[in-house]
This record gives sequence, structure tokens and C-alpha cells, in this order.
Amino acid sequence: MDNVMFKYKKDDATSFALGTTLSIEALTHKKEAAVRLYISPKQLHDDTYQKLLDLAQGAGIPVIENNERIFKDLSDKDNVMAILEFTKFASSLDPKANHVVLVHPSNMGNLGTIIRTMAGFGLLDLAIITPACDLFDPKVVRASMGALFDIRFQLFACYEDYEKAYAKQYPYPFMLQAKTALKDAEIHTPYALLFGNEATGLDSSFLTKGTPLLIPHTPLIDSLNLDNAAAIALYEFTK
Amino acid sequence: MDNVMFKYKKDDATSFALGTTLSIEALTHKKEAAVRLYISPKQLHDDTYQKLLDLAQGAGIPVIENNERIFKDLSDKDNVMAILEFTKFASSLDPKANHVVLVHPSNMGNLGTIIRTMAGFGLLDLAIITPACDLFDPKVVRASMGALFDIRFQLFACYEDYEKAYAKQYPYPFMLQAKTALKDAEIHTPYALLFGNEATGLDSSFLTKGTPLLIPHTPLIDSLNLDNAAAIALYEFTK
Repeated sequence: MDNVMFKYKKDDATSFALGTTLSIEALTHKKEAAVRLYISPKQLHDDTYQKLLDLAQGAGIPVIENNERIFKDLSDKDNVMAILEFTKFASSLDPKANHVVLVHPSNMGNLGTIIRTMAGFGLLDLAIITPACDLFDPKVVRASMGALFDIRFQLFACYEDYEKAYAKQYPYPFMLQAKTALKDAEIHTPYALLFGNEATGLDSSFLTKGTPLLIPHTPLIDSLNLDNAAAIALYEFTK
Repeated sequence: MDNVMFKYKKDDATSFALGTTLSIEALTHKKEAAVRLYISPKQLHDDTYQKLLDLAQGAGIPVIENNERIFKDLSDKDNVMAILEFTKFASSLDPKANHVVLVHPSNMGNLGTIIRTMAGFGLLDLAIITPACDLFDPKVVRASMGALFDIRFQLFACYEDYEKAYAKQYPYPFMLQAKTALKDAEIHTPYALLFGNEATGLDSSFLTKGTPLLIPHTPLIDSLNLDNAAAIALYEFTK
């Protein structure tokens, strides 16, 4: 078949920022990763169009304006007028900065939202312990509202690998079995805020790391939603 | 057609809690709203099965065990083994309690997560200013993890109607134009925490209500995700 369907796959070398806002974010904050820009034939030739063309030129990438297919294949929304294809990037974390460490995150919406909130609180270094959901899935890019292009991140096969690489970060594992409430935490910098998987949390081996912290809640719920817990922790540690 | 497809609609008098956990939550916390319990023919006759039967008996509702169709129609997941149909309920808010007021919330996942986090912080009264997404959509029920069955809520056609009905609650509108940071807020009880729509926030008319509050964030993002902002506010006000 000549006309191969566009479909994002985890093993691909590139991913996609869907929509004008996300494409502009990517071209502004991470132009070195940009590969090509698709503009929908339906896009009006207005200011936004000109801005997209200028940014693509600045990044030195081709602009494809006659490919309706990619819009149908990659987006179920009619209002997506621009798609930026970008090379998946990775980077080392800042060894002096505060970190967030997510152990086996599995929900792409949560992951994207946590990245957005990290950027919002100026905490720009994210370690992910695999297996985990795919950081570059277009759903994560979208949920991050483009903040994915602002942060540094690094994948690790296990927590011990992270710990060896970044021994200076004082760990604060968030867990229901912790004895210290978040509001009473003594903050050592640089720190690492650790969160477990949505369903299982952090296992009890983390009780021996740094200062385990608890966000107390009523017995009406089993736990806070992961991205809400992370948002509260980021707020409290950075305010 | 004899065999009508099951499909949830906003105007229906009943909705559905999808899954064993949610069905048990509903039967435990809101049994007066329960209408009938569907158990999948695939459900093993184990302890969970017995617990479901006991709760249904306690609620005085019929149990239907031979309807495979409703499981196919209402759920895209194979592991849903119980569905509780319940009558949509409503209630007045507690006039002495602290409230959350959501003005035109539009995302069902956010709404459900906010309800879960409200229950987590013991704030059980929710006012919703319409138009808004449907509180009873099974997606909201699911995102709330069953906390919908623990809270009181009331719909209002406009904010002024809420204000008249609950004049004692001191309003704290969360808005980017506010001058006071959340951490510096002086807390008057009972209070109402006000949040706007995901895309538009609260309009400037709310700047004259109570004490508008800001959760400061970096210029890397336009705003915090609605449910993250609500989680942070709930945490700070109740800690």
C-alpha cells in the first residue's frame, strides 16, 4: 500500500504534538527536536498560520500542507489544524536540582498532568522508573499542555539505578504507611519526591528511604488520585 | 426491537455504577438510591459474589444475573462483573459546612476526581453552577471512585442563586487575577472555594467576591489543571 496509515507507536523514533498550541510550544521550547510540521489544508492563512511558518523556518524543518490523511489518522478531533512531528529526546537530570521520581506510572493522563504541574512549580527534572507508560505518547504530550518540552527526564530500569546516579537528592517517598505528615516535613534540598504506581503505590521497601511522607485523608477514600497527590506535594515543597 | 440497547443518557432518571467496587460503594453508602443490581454470568460464585447478593438484599433490590447485554453495551472493559443501576439523587447542601463551588465544569474526569479529593479532605458539599457536564455520567461516577455516593450536591442556574441560598459561606474565588496567594489566605469559616471552567476560569466579576486567591505558578504554564488546583486548595484549607 502506497499510502501507509499514520499511527503512533511506542517504538517509533518520532512522536507527534497534535494541535496548533502544542506545535507552537514544541517549536518554541524544543526546536532542535522538530522534524516536520503538517498544516491542515483547512487552516486559514491568518496570523497563526504565519507564526507556524516562521517557527518552522526558524527550526529549519519542512512544512507539509497537502496531507489530509495524517489529521484523520492521528486525531479524532476536527479542530486539529497543525501537527508537529518531533524526534523523541532524552536528557540527564540536573544533579543539583530537586527531582520528581515516578515509580511505574501507568496512566498517560496522570503523567502528562504531573509534568504540567511540575513546570508550573518550577521543578523541571523527572525520573521515571520503568516499566511505565510511554512518556512520548501523543496523549501524554497533550495532557502536559506542552510542558513536556520544558522539562528534563531520564528513564531508569530500577530505583536503585536512580539512587546511584543521583545520590545527593534526599528522598521523600509518598506512601500511606508513612508516619510523618507532609505539612510537618523538614525540607532538605536538593530533594526527590517519590510516587508509586496509581494502583499499588510504593512498596514497603521505600519506608527505609529518606523521610516517608503522608498526605492525611479521611477513610472515605482509599487514596488520593496520583496527580492530585503530586500536585499537593509540589505545592507544599515549593511554596 | 425487543432487545433495546442499554445506553446512558443525561435525561434518564437512573445511571449506572460500573464494576464491583463501585457497586459495593453505592450499595454501602447510598442504598436508598439503588434500583437493581446486574451481575455478569461470568462472575465466579465467590466471596465477592456473596457480598453483592447480601448488599442487594439489604437494599431490597432485584438481582439480575442473566443479562450479558448490559455489560457489552455499557462497558468497554471485559473485567466489569457487576453494574448497579441507581436513581439520580440530589440534596441540599449543609448550610453550616464548608463548600466547593464549581462554575461550569466541563470535563467529567476532572469533576469525578475533584469529588474524590473532596471526600478525601472531608469537605462533602458541592455546588455546581450550570451549564456543566453531567454529574451522573458513569464516567464521573467512575472517576470519583464512588465518592459521589458520599457527598451532598446541589445544582444552581447561576452563581447569584447559590449566593442567596448560602449567604454564610465566605467566598474564596480562585483566579489568576487575584492578588492574595493561597498560602497567605486568612481562613473564615464556613467558606466556599470557587473554581471556574477548565478553559476560561472565573470571569472578572468574581474579583469582588470575598477574597480572591491565587496559586502562584511559573510562566511556563498558562494555568494549573483544574483538579490539581482544587486539590491544592482543599489541602491548604483543611490541613
